[in-house]
Amino acid sequence: MATLGLIEYKDASPEVRAVYDDIMATRKTDWINNFWKALAHDPATLRRTWQSIKEIMAPGALDGVTKQMIYLAVSATNQCNYCIASHTAAARKAGMTDAMLAELMAVVGMANETNSLASAYQIEVDEQFRT
Amino acid sequence: MATLGLIEYKDASPEVRAVYDDIMATRKTDWINNFWKALAHDPATLRRTWQSIKEIMAPGALDGVTKQMIYLAVSATNQCNYCIASHTAAARKAGMTDAMLAELMAVVGMANETNSLASAYQIEVDEQFRT
Amino acid sequence: MATLGLIEYKDASPEVRAVYDDIMATRKTDWINNFWKALAHDPATLRRTWQSIKEIMAPGALDGVTKQMIYLAVSATNQCNYCIASHTAAARKAGMTDAMLAELMAVVGMANETNSLASAYQIEVDEQFRT
Amino acid sequence: MATLGLIEYKDASPEVRAVYDDIMATRKTDWINNFWKALAHDPATLRRTWQSIKEIMAPGALDGVTKQMIYLAVSATNQCNYCIASHTAAARKAGMTDAMLAELMAVVGMANETNSLASAYQIEVDEQFRT
Amino acid sequence: MATLGLIEYKDASPEVRAVYDDIMATRKTDWINNFWKALAHDPATLRRTWQSIKEIMAPGALDGVTKQMIYLAVSATNQCNYCIASHTAAARKAGMTDAMLAELMAVVGMANETNSLASAYQIEVDEQFRT
Amino acid sequence: MATLGLIEYKDASPEVRAVYDDIMATRKTDWINNFWKALAHDPATLRRTWQSIKEIMAPGALDGVTKQMIYLAVSATNQCNYCIASHTAAARKAGMTDAMLAELMAVVGMANETNSLASAYQIEVDEQFRT
Repeated sequence: MATLGLIEYKDASPEVRAVYDDIMATRKTDWINNFWKALAHDPATLRRTWQSIKEIMAPGALDGVTKQMIYLAVSATNQCNYCIASHTAAARKAGMTDAMLAELMAVVGMANETNSLASAYQIEVDEQFRT
Repeated sequence: MATLGLIEYKDASPEVRAVYDDIMATRKTDWINNFWKALAHDPATLRRTWQSIKEIMAPGALDGVTKQMIYLAVSATNQCNYCIASHTAAARKAGMTDAMLAELMAVVGMANETNSLASAYQIEVDEQFRT
Repeated sequence: MATLGLIEYKDASPEVRAVYDDIMATRKTDWINNFWKALAHDPATLRRTWQSIKEIMAPGALDGVTKQMIYLAVSATNQCNYCIASHTAAARKAGMTDAMLAELMAVVGMANETNSLASAYQIEVDEQFRT
Repeated sequence: MATLGLIEYKDASPEVRAVYDDIMATRKTDWINNFWKALAHDPATLRRTWQSIKEIMAPGALDGVTKQMIYLAVSATNQCNYCIASHTAAARKAGMTDAMLAELMAVVGMANETNSLASAYQIEVDEQFRT
Repeated sequence: MATLGLIEYKDASPEVRAVYDDIMATRKTDWINNFWKALAHDPATLRRTWQSIKEIMAPGALDGVTKQMIYLAVSATNQCNYCIASHTAAARKAGMTDAMLAELMAVVGMANETNSLASAYQIEVDEQFRT
Repeated sequence: MATLGLIEYKDASPEVRAVYDDIMATRKTDWINNFWKALAHDPATLRRTWQSIKEIMAPGALDGVTKQMIYLAVSATNQCNYCIASHTAAARKAGMTDAMLAELMAVVGMANETNSLASAYQIEVDEQFRT
């Protein structure tokens, strides 16, 4: 179980409810996932993390599904089970098809492979790549 | 310096030259970066790694610049300096603008933050996320 | 289940029991957690690991709760579920309050975020930080 | 060099200068380290990251030096060279002595060792550690 | 459950069955583990990954059990639960005894410890180690 | 430069010299690499780390070169530059040929790839792999 437990909407302070309400309104859902309910024990972190994610994940130079796939790529690399589960769902909701998922996975796997090879062989950065 | 040194085109065996030629033709460049020159000491790994990357990075359900940005996201998470340098260059060549780069970085940073928070708080996966 | 199983006190060799006894005496508890019961299949590693932890975690220039929180920060970063669970308990026993836990988590999350940003942007170390 | 280069104070927009000014005022220094100069190409991320760090690193239930040492522990675990250099300096400025540094390092090393052992042996979480 | 589910032999396409058959023939087993059944939703990745593993894990300059132990060492370091479980089984099948397992674990633990110490102390590479 | 600097033999205390002497005698060399010179500022950690490594890396159920290759595999996965450099040298001294190095690298790369794939696809551990 989550270290500090989960705070449900009905038990939440007005400050926490305001964040929950904004999450549901922004995401057009009627439920809150456990990540936020766990953070709610620390309202400052809850608010700050939500504001940051809301700002960062909004479509801009990159569209929403691309951002969710990048989030998933990082989560898979970090072996974060909760994040893989939640961002797989979020990426699908944003439009990721199974074909896109499969290609994403293949890139993530290959990047992890060549990252270790590049370091293992102690390869120097090419002059052409220095900015 | 790379552990086994770098094999230049002029010193390469026909087998290695064939891979180098395919890399340059596929990428429409006239040079080979150090990663491949280091792997060339092991022609089987050189060939296999190049064939895999060529297959995986070709546009499909995801376009080329998205794939390069995912590669860069993984490399940043793994703190692989060589890979960050080379895939920043590759993503730019594929069309990543500075605005896209900045948004990519912001997503990568936030994903690394929430990955550690989700694990640190021992948060259980929501029933809704179980596939 | 643990790869080699768990060795209970009643089934342990005198060598292993001596370590178990010292763990319980040092920690002022009457039970042994699974980590040690799993290592007990390799008495040399059991003894060495316990001696190292006993020496390292004893209060010195840093007090016990600070050391436990640092241990927890590393475990969260590595996404080690067992270690997060056991060192959350240990840090609380050493005096970590929920408020301290929440601040610890916030620092860990932020550090993981900026670690990836610093690497992703290929930022050079400032002259002032070179020792 | 940093991917997008570094923005010096004299070349910065008023929005960026406002952040730089707040960093220097908060830290009581007269210079800005490269991390912020690199982020300045993305003023939204610069502002958000600084606000978050300012909020998180302020003394609260944990004092400033403890927070800096936790930051350093995470950075060492992630092998982030920039962050190790900058947060070693920050922790020292906040009061970390060489003796505290040595104990911090010893805990970080041991935590990384036992994290891998706990996972490698597939050890189940003890009932007593489940919250 | 696996994101895209698992494809059993009886439900597999001829292309997937051909890979499954080769896996069972190569490994001299009559079942397929979940890793391959999950990848089977992406036949190109299934085929490529299997071909690579078949080529890489075949005895050569290193024997089979050494290769499996190296695989396990990486998996433990990455905290990949599935891979730790599957490669512990594979290494044992290839000849790893409990005594070898214990020594492997001890090396993995120590390497993870000193890796973080070397980075944490910002130690420069010795001239003698530069190739 | 190393955070606390490096302690040369001529400047070392008798306690530190005793460890240095044992390192050189055990390794049959006449010099000390920077790792130990950096740790020497904390004689307790120096002594404990050396004793642990001496015990763990001695040939047993696994021979010396296998242990050094496992150490290198972990270091490559963690992207620890110092450790990759020092353990490449140590593994070669223990008998690792270039052909063995190349196969080691290939296994490390593949393991890092499939580790991320197994997690990314959220694959459940097979009943057959549960111990």
